[in-house]
Amino acid sequence: MQERNRTEISTLGEFGLIKHLTDHLKLTNDSTKYGVGDDCAVLEYPEGKQILVTNDLLLEGIHFDLTYVPMKHLGYKSAMVNFSDVYAMNGMPKQLVVSIALSKRFCVEDMEDFYDGLRMACEAHGVDIVGGDTTPSLTGLAISITCIGEADKRQVVYRNGAKETDLICVSGDLGAAYMGLQLLEREKTVFNQQMKESAEAAQPDFSGKEYLLERQLKPEARRDIVEALAKASIKPTAMMDISDGLSSELLHICTQSGVGCRIYEEHIPLDYQTAVMAEELNMNVTTCALNGGEDYELLFTVPIADYEKVCHIEGVKMIGHITKADLGCVLVCRDGNEFELKAQGWNPLK
Amino acid sequence: MQERNRTEISTLGEFGLIKHLTDHLKLTNDSTKYGVGDDCAVLEYPEGKQILVTNDLLLEGIHFDLTYVPMKHLGYKSAMVNFSDVYAMNGMPKQLVVSIALSKRFCVEDMEDFYDGLRMACEAHGVDIVGGDTTPSLTGLAISITCIGEADKRQVVYRNGAKETDLICVSGDLGAAYMGLQLLEREKTVFNQQMKESAEAAQPDFSGKEYLLERQLKPEARRDIVEALAKASIKPTAMMDISDGLSSELLHICTQSGVGCRIYEEHIPLDYQTAVMAEELNMNVTTCALNGGEDYELLFTVPIADYEKVCHIEGVKMIGHITKADLGCVLVCRDGNEFELKAQGWNPLK
Repeated sequence: MQERNRTEISTLGEFGLIKHLTDHLKLTNDSTKYGVGDDCAVLEYPEGKQILVTNDLLLEGIHFDLTYVPMKHLGYKSAMVNFSDVYAMNGMPKQLVVSIALSKRFCVEDMEDFYDGLRMACEAHGVDIVGGDTTPSLTGLAISITCIGEADKRQVVYRNGAKETDLICVSGDLGAAYMGLQLLEREKTVFNQQMKESAEAAQPDFSGKEYLLERQLKPEARRDIVEALAKASIKPTAMMDISDGLSSELLHICTQSGVGCRIYEEHIPLDYQTAVMAEELNMNVTTCALNGGEDYELLFTVPIADYEKVCHIEGVKMIGHITKADLGCVLVCRDGNEFELKAQGWNPLK
Repeated sequence: MQERNRTEISTLGEFGLIKHLTDHLKLTNDSTKYGVGDDCAVLEYPEGKQILVTNDLLLEGIHFDLTYVPMKHLGYKSAMVNFSDVYAMNGMPKQLVVSIALSKRFCVEDMEDFYDGLRMACEAHGVDIVGGDTTPSLTGLAISITCIGEADKRQVVYRNGAKETDLICVSGDLGAAYMGLQLLEREKTVFNQQMKESAEAAQPDFSGKEYLLERQLKPEARRDIVEALAKASIKPTAMMDISDGLSSELLHICTQSGVGCRIYEEHIPLDYQTAVMAEELNMNVTTCALNGGEDYELLFTVPIADYEKVCHIEGVKMIGHITKADLGCVLVCRDGNEFELKAQGWNPLK
C-alpha cells in the first residue's frame, strides 16, 4: 500500500471542504450562468432547446464497493452514468450537480480523488460542475448526481416511438462490465481468505482481463454514437441506455411503444474477454449479456429505411427487429429455439 | 398505535413500485414536456427565463429521525426545503425529481405516505414531479431531491449583491424549528425511558407548543414573500434562505458581497412559544434564533430607498443594515454590548 496523507474533514469544516473542492471549477458552457456558491445554480438555454434532467442516487454497499473501486474511478463513473441518461435522449450533457454524504471514515484526500474523477469525466464530455454540496452520513458514502443536458426540440428521442419493422441496434458490446464485477468479487474473496489464513495476500493478477475491469470501473458514455447518428441524419424512433441489462431495457421500449420484438442471440455483440471469463466462471455468456447490466451502451431502434445509413456507423450492431405487440418479446437462439425475454430489476428480498 | 397494512416492496419490485407511486402524477406546468418514465425528464422554458437548479441529499439519522417524523411530513418537508432554495434566488419552483434509497424495513405504504406529503407540497406550490426513482439501501432511508425553477433573467437575486447602507430583512420568525426539534428530542428520551422502566409510556403532551412542532415538522417555504416583493417592485440586492441559522447565512451574504453588517438583537423576530420553550430549556433564545437552523425563512437586503416599500410587506422585519467590510459582522445586544457573529456548519467530529 502506498503511503498517503490523511487530512480530517473536521480541519476544514463543511463550508471549508466545499470551497476546497469547488474553488477552481471552470465553467465553459454558454448555458451556465452561475455555478457553485449560491442557493441554486443558474442556467439559460436558447430558444428551441429542450432541457433534459436526470438524477442518480448511488450508495456504498449497493451500487459500489470501495474495497476495489478507487474514489477517483467512483467519481468518474458517477458522472458517466448520468451522461449516459442524457445521451439516451439524443441530447448533450451540459451541467452537473453533485451532493455527497460521507462518514468520518473519509478524509479530505478521498474527496479530492472523487472530485478528480468527476472533473475528468466532465472535462471529457464538456460538462460544467455547477453544484457541489457535502453533508455528513452515519454509515458510508452516498452520492447524488443530477445532470442537465440539452437537445434540439425536434431531436429528443423517447422510449415510446418504436414501430413494427424498425431495426433494433446496440452500440459496443455487452456483458463485459458484469464479468468485470464477477472478477473483482472473486478476487476480493480470495484476498480476504488469504489474509485470514496468513495475514498476507498476493496482489491479484488481472492480465488478459483488463478490458473487463475497465468496463466495470471506467465506463464510457456513448457521446460518439449520438454524434454519429446526428452526422448520419438518423433520428432513432426509440432509445435508452443499457444500465439494467439488454433484456430489461428492450422490454421497457416494447412496453412503452406498444410493440413486440425479435432479437437474435448470434447478433448480440460480445467481447472475446467476456466470453472467456464466462467460460471460466461456468456461466452462459448470453445470459450475462442479456441481464448483466452496467454496460452503458445505447439501445435504439431505427426505421428499416435507415438500414444502409446505420450500417456505416462504427461500433453499432443490428440485433433484431420490432414486431407486432402480440408476437411478444422473443430471443431466437443459435440453435433456433425461441425464448420469451424476461425483465430483471432490483428486488430487495432477493 | 394504529393498525396498518404492510405490503412488502418485493411484491411490486422496483419497476412496479415506481409505477405505483408515479402513475397518477399530474403535470400542470407549460415548461414540463415529459415527466417520469424515460431516461430524463424533458423541460422547455421560454426565452428570457433563467433556470434555477438545486439539490438536497437527506439521510435518516442525520437530517431526520423517523421515530418522530411521519413519512408524510418527511415527504412534505423534503420538497419544501428545495422550494425554499428556489425562492431564495427570487424564482418560482416548477419541477421536482426525487430519488429514494430504502432498506427492507420500509413497505409500500411508507412510500405512499412519503409521496402523499411530497405531492401535497408540490400541489400547494405549483410544482410537477417529473422524476421518481427508487433503489435499495443497506441501512435506512436516503432521499435526493432536485428542484428546477425559473426566474426572469433580470430578477435573479444572488448572495453577492449586498451594498453598504442596505437594510437587512428577514421574513417570519426564527428559532422555532430548532425549539421544536429540542422538544421532540426531549419527549423521545422520556418515552424511551418510560418504555424501559414499565414497558408502557404516556403519549407526550404538546399543547401550547403546536407552533414549534409545526415549524419543525411542516415548514412552509416563503413563496408569499417572493410574490410580495415582486408586487412591491422590490428586487433585493442579496437573498438566501435560512436553513443553517441566521448567523451563518448572514456571514455568507457578507463574505460573498464583500461587506460587513450590523444587526440588532431586539429586532430579531421571535415567536412567543419559542421564547417560552427556550426559558424552559434554560437556553438563550437569541442564540437559538441565530444558530438554530431549519427556519426556511428568507434573509435579504434591500437598498435603503426601499425602506417605505418594505415596511408595508406583512411578515417582514428589518433587523439591521449592511456596513463596510472592515467593520465586521456585528450583533448589537439589548444591553448595548456588541459581539462578532460566528458561522456554524456541520462538522463531523463535533
